[in-house]
Amino acid sequence: MPNAAPHQDPTADLRPGDSYVQSFARGLEVIRSFSASAPRQTLTEVATRTGLTRAGARRILLTLQTLGYVASDGKLFALTPRILDLGFAYLSSMPIWNVAEPAMEALVEQVKESCSAGVLEGTDIVYVLRVSTRKIMRNTLGVGSRLPAYCTSLGRMLLAGLPDEQVLNLLRASPIEARTRHTITEVDALLAKVQQARRQGWCLVNQELEEGLVSMAAPIVDRTGATIAALNISGQVNRTPPRQMQEAMLPALRDAAREVSQRLGR
Amino acid sequence: MPNAAPHQDPTADLRPGDSYVQSFARGLEVIRSFSASAPRQTLTEVATRTGLTRAGARRILLTLQTLGYVASDGKLFALTPRILDLGFAYLSSMPIWNVAEPAMEALVEQVKESCSAGVLEGTDIVYVLRVSTRKIMRNTLGVGSRLPAYCTSLGRMLLAGLPDEQVLNLLRASPIEARTRHTITEVDALLAKVQQARRQGWCLVNQELEEGLVSMAAPIVDRTGATIAALNISGQVNRTPPRQMQEAMLPALRDAAREVSQRLGR
Repeated sequence: MPNAAPHQDPTADLRPGDSYVQSFARGLEVIRSFSASAPRQTLTEVATRTGLTRAGARRILLTLQTLGYVASDGKLFALTPRILDLGFAYLSSMPIWNVAEPAMEALVEQVKESCSAGVLEGTDIVYVLRVSTRKIMRNTLGVGSRLPAYCTSLGRMLLAGLPDEQVLNLLRASPIEARTRHTITEVDALLAKVQQARRQGWCLVNQELEEGLVSMAAPIVDRTGATIAALNISGQVNRTPPRQMQEAMLPALRDAAREVSQRLGR
Repeated sequence: MPNAAPHQDPTADLRPGDSYVQSFARGLEVIRSFSASAPRQTLTEVATRTGLTRAGARRILLTLQTLGYVASDGKLFALTPRILDLGFAYLSSMPIWNVAEPAMEALVEQVKESCSAGVLEGTDIVYVLRVSTRKIMRNTLGVGSRLPAYCTSLGRMLLAGLPDEQVLNLLRASPIEARTRHTITEVDALLAKVQQARRQGWCLVNQELEEGLVSMAAPIVDRTGATIAALNISGQVNRTPPRQMQEAMLPALRDAAREVSQRLGR
């Protein structure tokens, strides 16, 4: 269910144009308009970023303030930590949360590279858990951050859990670009990579997201065999060339993913 | 601003009873009704947990589904990882995120105990960052989880950043109970502890939250001197008695908190 495409089941009596849906969507858009580059915003800034009128933005900001999700000094608005309750509801509703962390920590201890768990959300992967090593070149992507699925090991492994038709639809909807000179950008070639990942039960992506970054992923499956998440290890190519990474770390990664899958199945 | 009490500024034209505010609040309540014990819910379960009518719960679930925040197999509803975008907006809007993590990792490396960063939200503390050690007895509280402020070191340190009158208001609103035989439960005695934390610039809480758990906290202040978060170290009393923890780890904890504060001030 976490992998279900979100917009596929429009209901008979509720459409995206419905005013109730729209106002709720706008409220969530206002929340999402805050970021590292816009931690505190004026009313005008929120209106500009969300495309709302000033009156509309004001109504939503005051609603969020009344509910305790936004604080204001009268001029600048900022999110409050209450917002975290929403994401926490999701994370704590995933059985993977408690089961995966010890296995991931043991894996990081063993391979001395960072390990992340991610799930598919549309054409993106979203990190749900991350255990970093203490090396200087670290992967600093936090929980909740996103990357495109097509050029990441987590993404290809998660796509491999879907039928080919769905994979093709997602690849066609993806923001494909040559992020490095290694990035595969043809849909057919990407599908072949996803199929290979499905056959072998793991995948390795060599500098397609970013020069120098290599990563490998293995699937986490529930008791029905459905892929519900994936684990990855990422490293720097000048420290750990792909072949060496595969030989030295793939068995440990696959063991960790299997262990998490088995515990979920109990 | 993160510490501002959320409900203090009711606006002239927008009250909690306003239908727009109410429907938004209900939507967020539906999100919060999902948890580790209720990861997938039927319509009836959501209605029961939130106190909504079945029709009301259905309308909100379908809205969330239309917007991609909820997925359904027709009978059971579950949150999707898109929910994390909301919490991620908050976390990435905090400058502490990038600055604190390296300092916390270095601290954990040095003292071999887990370190967390938290902020005040009403009468609770909310964890915003956590670096765990790999010992067997670990503090497994994740980002976004909450604990009452009155009986935790992070909470007392954060309260110490507020004027006494506000501290008293929050303590009086707190769900005070004797969680262990060590828990201080009188408001006056708690205020004295908060004042002591303010004077000395750190605090130690000895088994007031949980038998066996000792923790120390130090404040993170912005360039105006306002307390915007706190760092803590927690350990087990049978491994690290309070006096030993204070002697061996307090200087490192205070150094880390000062380093984060200074970097924020630049």
